[in-house]
Amino acid sequence: MTVASGISEEAKPVQVTLHPLRVGVEQEPLCIFGTGDLGRSLGLRLLQTGCRVVYGSRRPHSCGPLPEGAEVMSHEAAARAARLIFICVHREHYTFMETLATYLKGKVLVDLSNNLKKDIYPEANAVYLQRLVPGATVVKGLNTLSAWALQNGLLTGKQVYLCGNSAEAKQAVAEVATKMGLTVLDRGSLSAARDLEDFPLRLFPEWRLPLRIAVSLTAFFYFYLLIRDVIYAYVEQGKDISYRIMVSLANKVFPIVSLVMLSLCYLPGVIAAFLQLYRGTKYRRFPNWLDRWMLCRKQMGLIALGFAFLHAIYTFIIPIRYAVRHKLISRVVDEMKNNKTTPFDFDNTEAWGTDSFYVLGILGFFLYVLLGLTSLPSVGGSLSWREFSFIQSKLGHVTLFICTVHGYIYGWNKFLRLSTYKWYTPPGYMLCLVVPSVVLVLKMLILLPCVDGTLTRIRQGWERTQSSEEETGGIKATNL
Amino acid sequence: MTVASGISEEAKPVQVTLHPLRVGVEQEPLCIFGTGDLGRSLGLRLLQTGCRVVYGSRRPHSCGPLPEGAEVMSHEAAARAARLIFICVHREHYTFMETLATYLKGKVLVDLSNNLKKDIYPEANAVYLQRLVPGATVVKGLNTLSAWALQNGLLTGKQVYLCGNSAEAKQAVAEVATKMGLTVLDRGSLSAARDLEDFPLRLFPEWRLPLRIAVSLTAFFYFYLLIRDVIYAYVEQGKDISYRIMVSLANKVFPIVSLVMLSLCYLPGVIAAFLQLYRGTKYRRFPNWLDRWMLCRKQMGLIALGFAFLHAIYTFIIPIRYAVRHKLISRVVDEMKNNKTTPFDFDNTEAWGTDSFYVLGILGFFLYVLLGLTSLPSVGGSLSWREFSFIQSKLGHVTLFICTVHGYIYGWNKFLRLSTYKWYTPPGYMLCLVVPSVVLVLKMLILLPCVDGTLTRIRQGWERTQSSEEETGGIKATNL
Amino acid sequence: MTVASGISEEAKPVQVTLHPLRVGVEQEPLCIFGTGDLGRSLGLRLLQTGCRVVYGSRRPHSCGPLPEGAEVMSHEAAARAARLIFICVHREHYTFMETLATYLKGKVLVDLSNNLKKDIYPEANAVYLQRLVPGATVVKGLNTLSAWALQNGLLTGKQVYLCGNSAEAKQAVAEVATKMGLTVLDRGSLSAARDLEDFPLRLFPEWRLPLRIAVSLTAFFYFYLLIRDVIYAYVEQGKDISYRIMVSLANKVFPIVSLVMLSLCYLPGVIAAFLQLYRGTKYRRFPNWLDRWMLCRKQMGLIALGFAFLHAIYTFIIPIRYAVRHKLISRVVDEMKNNKTTPFDFDNTEAWGTDSFYVLGILGFFLYVLLGLTSLPSVGGSLSWREFSFIQSKLGHVTLFICTVHGYIYGWNKFLRLSTYKWYTPPGYMLCLVVPSVVLVLKMLILLPCVDGTLTRIRQGWERTQSSEEETGGIKATNL
Repeated sequence: MTVASGISEEAKPVQVTLHPLRVGVEQEPLCIFGTGDLGRSLGLRLLQTGCRVVYGSRRPHSCGPLPEGAEVMSHEAAARAARLIFICVHREHYTFMETLATYLKGKVLVDLSNNLKKDIYPEANAVYLQRLVPGATVVKGLNTLSAWALQNGLLTGKQVYLCGNSAEAKQAVAEVATKMGLTVLDRGSLSAARDLEDFPLRLFPEWRLPLRIAVSLTAFFYFYLLIRDVIYAYVEQGKDISYRIMVSLANKVFPIVSLVMLSLCYLPGVIAAFLQLYRGTKYRRFPNWLDRWMLCRKQMGLIALGFAFLHAIYTFIIPIRYAVRHKLISRVVDEMKNNKTTPFDFDNTEAWGTDSFYVLGILGFFLYVLLGLTSLPSVGGSLSWREFSFIQSKLGHVTLFICTVHGYIYGWNKFLRLSTYKWYTPPGYMLCLVVPSVVLVLKMLILLPCVDGTLTRIRQGWERTQSSEEETGGIKATNL
Repeated sequence: MTVASGISEEAKPVQVTLHPLRVGVEQEPLCIFGTGDLGRSLGLRLLQTGCRVVYGSRRPHSCGPLPEGAEVMSHEAAARAARLIFICVHREHYTFMETLATYLKGKVLVDLSNNLKKDIYPEANAVYLQRLVPGATVVKGLNTLSAWALQNGLLTGKQVYLCGNSAEAKQAVAEVATKMGLTVLDRGSLSAARDLEDFPLRLFPEWRLPLRIAVSLTAFFYFYLLIRDVIYAYVEQGKDISYRIMVSLANKVFPIVSLVMLSLCYLPGVIAAFLQLYRGTKYRRFPNWLDRWMLCRKQMGLIALGFAFLHAIYTFIIPIRYAVRHKLISRVVDEMKNNKTTPFDFDNTEAWGTDSFYVLGILGFFLYVLLGLTSLPSVGGSLSWREFSFIQSKLGHVTLFICTVHGYIYGWNKFLRLSTYKWYTPPGYMLCLVVPSVVLVLKMLILLPCVDGTLTRIRQGWERTQSSEEETGGIKATNL
Repeated sequence: MTVASGISEEAKPVQVTLHPLRVGVEQEPLCIFGTGDLGRSLGLRLLQTGCRVVYGSRRPHSCGPLPEGAEVMSHEAAARAARLIFICVHREHYTFMETLATYLKGKVLVDLSNNLKKDIYPEANAVYLQRLVPGATVVKGLNTLSAWALQNGLLTGKQVYLCGNSAEAKQAVAEVATKMGLTVLDRGSLSAARDLEDFPLRLFPEWRLPLRIAVSLTAFFYFYLLIRDVIYAYVEQGKDISYRIMVSLANKVFPIVSLVMLSLCYLPGVIAAFLQLYRGTKYRRFPNWLDRWMLCRKQMGLIALGFAFLHAIYTFIIPIRYAVRHKLISRVVDEMKNNKTTPFDFDNTEAWGTDSFYVLGILGFFLYVLLGLTSLPSVGGSLSWREFSFIQSKLGHVTLFICTVHGYIYGWNKFLRLSTYKWYTPPGYMLCLVVPSVVLVLKMLILLPCVDGTLTRIRQGWERTQSSEEETGGIKATNL
């Protein structure tokens, strides 16, 4: 951590004596309380990283299979042998440690426990443990590791969190964790223990808002189209086309929701840019709702991709559906009976229109998938920052543009036809084109040279201040 | 590794002298024997991590291009300069080191060699090397690194294994490996060298059982359907429909195998739950076959996804097939000639039935793909344990349920029709529905509140013991 | 790094005093100049890894929100407090550090700055900084980290580069970076700073050549088929089939380009093998063009997969296109009017032919996707070397073979028909089969036992030399 400024004359001699202290045969052991799944897996992993491991057990002679190379002792003996004790025991059974208080004095207790639900206890497990054994130093952490991941060596590069009141104790635990291939993040004092204990219980928190939006949009458009298509046909024309609910309706709703979600994914960026332009600085926080929105853009994009994927498959199976085949056959038969030949004239405009429509859809979907692939952690991690922003921003807006045009072409010759507006409502695809169009227009405004220049300067730290413009502007601008 | 309990009065002075020994200009070099691809790549990487590198070569002046910054010496001089020597030489040429025995005394030799095949030598390369140079300490390891990965910096976070009889020597090698961004796992004494040498030669060991099951199932169902469809039609009706072997038959076999594989993926979990319920404890090992089965669930699921993917594409191309188009056209022509109009009546039940069938298939496939995506190492690694288990267990069973219903709807109106049972055999999809139905029924039993409660308690360590229930139950229950 | 050969008698006492110096409460702080996005994110991350952080600011009392736990001081005070100073300031504002020269003497300055474009300054930022503050030691590095990645903890396992003239200073920075979960690679002296500063500005350099080839091939074949199909039909038959440009033509070009790209991906390997056979050694460098070609094989394969993906989707939507439906309907109607019945005879050969064609296409696409999946960093990284080479080499050539046969079957009955050769030009698919066929024939030659044996020996280090064959052959062969 620190930098040696002195000259390294005494480098060699120390070098010789430095290493034994780490690999000495009389290496100090690590202690594990608890011989359950987690205790055993943790011990195995610690042994594999070259540590000595001692288990503390109430029944040292009959505690089931333990990893080869580990020793088993009574709790007292184990506590005496080690300075670092991993507590792999359920909170309900912590009380036995109260009786060991004298042996645990000055030791570091690493609390790995989790609860089954949130808020079932008034205080965090680690805080409770500290209260039981005030003489020891409790560190909460590593509780995101599962026995399964430990056994299968799936730790490499995983982030784990620590918290505790003693920096020394945390450092000691961090060193062990680093040896196991984990990356350690310090989350501060023991008061953060509750957060850490809630961590393994979280269930896609960052997906909730996007999923809620997606479900609301789907429900709304489903209902809207149900009325416009199925109920309208039944009421006005007396036709029962309820079978369309399953595929036709869904295949209208999915692309609509997908396009809206994709544009909602790029809208906050545009809003943020205009906010920065209006404020003339990047140093004022965005409003909370905008911050939250920007944090779930990735999830929104992935949900949009999911809907696009469903739309694609729904489209591919169109020709094998019973209703579609029936329509095709009955149309031919009708034509033959009525002996009309005109409709069979090949309409070149129609051919160009539908083909363009499909091509744009395919290209849009292709770019969609590309965006999704680069959001995979391992792919995104191998990109440089400029590459990542090129794909997510430039390519993302191109995708939005293509998909929006795909939507416009769908209705190109229907916008001005009166029969389109059943019961005076616009069709679904018109509604869904509003948000993407707004985003694209705003984005184009931002790309105008004069606006773009100001924005770039603001993002580099320049400030448009009223009063002491010179001075503060200069200072701010020094920061990356 | 160890925890400092003392007060850190002498922290500062040591701090100043600690660092020089690591970054001293007179840093001790690492030696590499062998200037082949691996030797050169390893040297380059070591230089990049800031080490000094010395090559030992029999012809120091003509050994081809070496990475910039490395020195080349004779074997003797190189061995004398370093304490850690990487042996990047084929086993067949180890004998030259026998003559260097005096120079290699007390050194650590890291054996990186691999063999081309298993079991071509009576003893592991590293053991052979140790026998040749008894005065040195041999560490086997890093042999899973390829020259290609070293050159392209694809090491970060990779796990490597070490084994050797000296903990100090292993520690020294582990430090170098850690510096290169590798995560090191200690596999014990030098007797594990054979395992480590076999490691790079393994070829999908965990995929063998699932693949064998998949191939057997495919072969069986292909043959079964060949008899029922093609041969039956030829024998009983004299029709040659052999062209169906390519697409129609395959598109029946693939979903069948996919569904059976998916249910086989969830069956062991259900069996394990019932075994735990029956035994009343989680502390007794599962039988070996169940353990093996549970370890290859992921592979089974991925193979099932592969078959589902093929099924999807086979379905998409149905309407462009010659046979299907021919059938469509000839059906229209026949209808016209016979002037029948009844079949053109639109059958609402049929439309609902086929559409539901397709929708369930699409949803099932969508969830399938989602399950496959979360099994990608980088995606799965970013999920919390609860998220991972939610997706793989809850979502997995929902997928199985949807796909099973997809299968039931396929045959909804054929189950009671006699003509379905050609030659008194049930059609393929009926056979394939047996295992998924059993899994789903058993799973539903487990989800009953009373069963679920008992199971949860057992999995938390509770035991239903006959005799001293109180005491042992209490003790066991303390372990996570 | 070094190996302790001595006996570890004094292990214990040192052990006790070693740790305090790291976790001492009076830990030396790290200093950050600049309170912009990057400075704040870096400080937050450093605090999380357990370091003390001190910000240097010109306006310590009004510099905006800083991470909790960090101290803010004047530049002078901050510089005095720490030995390691992270410079998160734009190059344009470096001059203020000249005035701090006395405080910065003997300190390590880590230059994290990037430029917005290449080559806008005559010297690298870090070199400029060193010139401004000659008394300090400048280390360039960590500049590939973005504020965004720092804030979101996306660092784990990421590779960062350092360069600088002082090994000690680099080591000190490397230790901090390692603590943050980064893997550090030393890129030598400060003269490499320019490369490091250009690094975040690179935009898919390894994709350029493959993309250029793909675009050229696409343009050529598009033009070629446009002439042969659309313009030929217009000129010779007077038909306007320009609507085919959108889908039909693209769906001919995409598979052609995909197949050519895939074969170009395996061609350099075959060429390299023949070069090694001809030269009789693997120790001579390949020509530069071959090296460059081999380095972008992965990108070529992925682009080929992209084209194959587009080809697949274009194929799936064929039956829902207006032109295709129109053709189908008008064909039925024509047939009925002319009362011909012969064309409705079922052609068994045709059915077999088209079905084989589709099946091979599907299998090829399936293997294509499999190849693509294993090239994901996280999937490829979990494979052993033999598994990786099995998939990329064996499975890759099988994919090429299947796709080539797919192409041959497409034209199976058209090769000898004169009408195929419009304007004396061969159709596109014939042209595209040339390269894959050559690759496959050459690969088959290499797989002949006699050739394969020689090649294997050469790749193990054996050399076919004219003169002193024995000696040098023996020496070379010792290297892995």
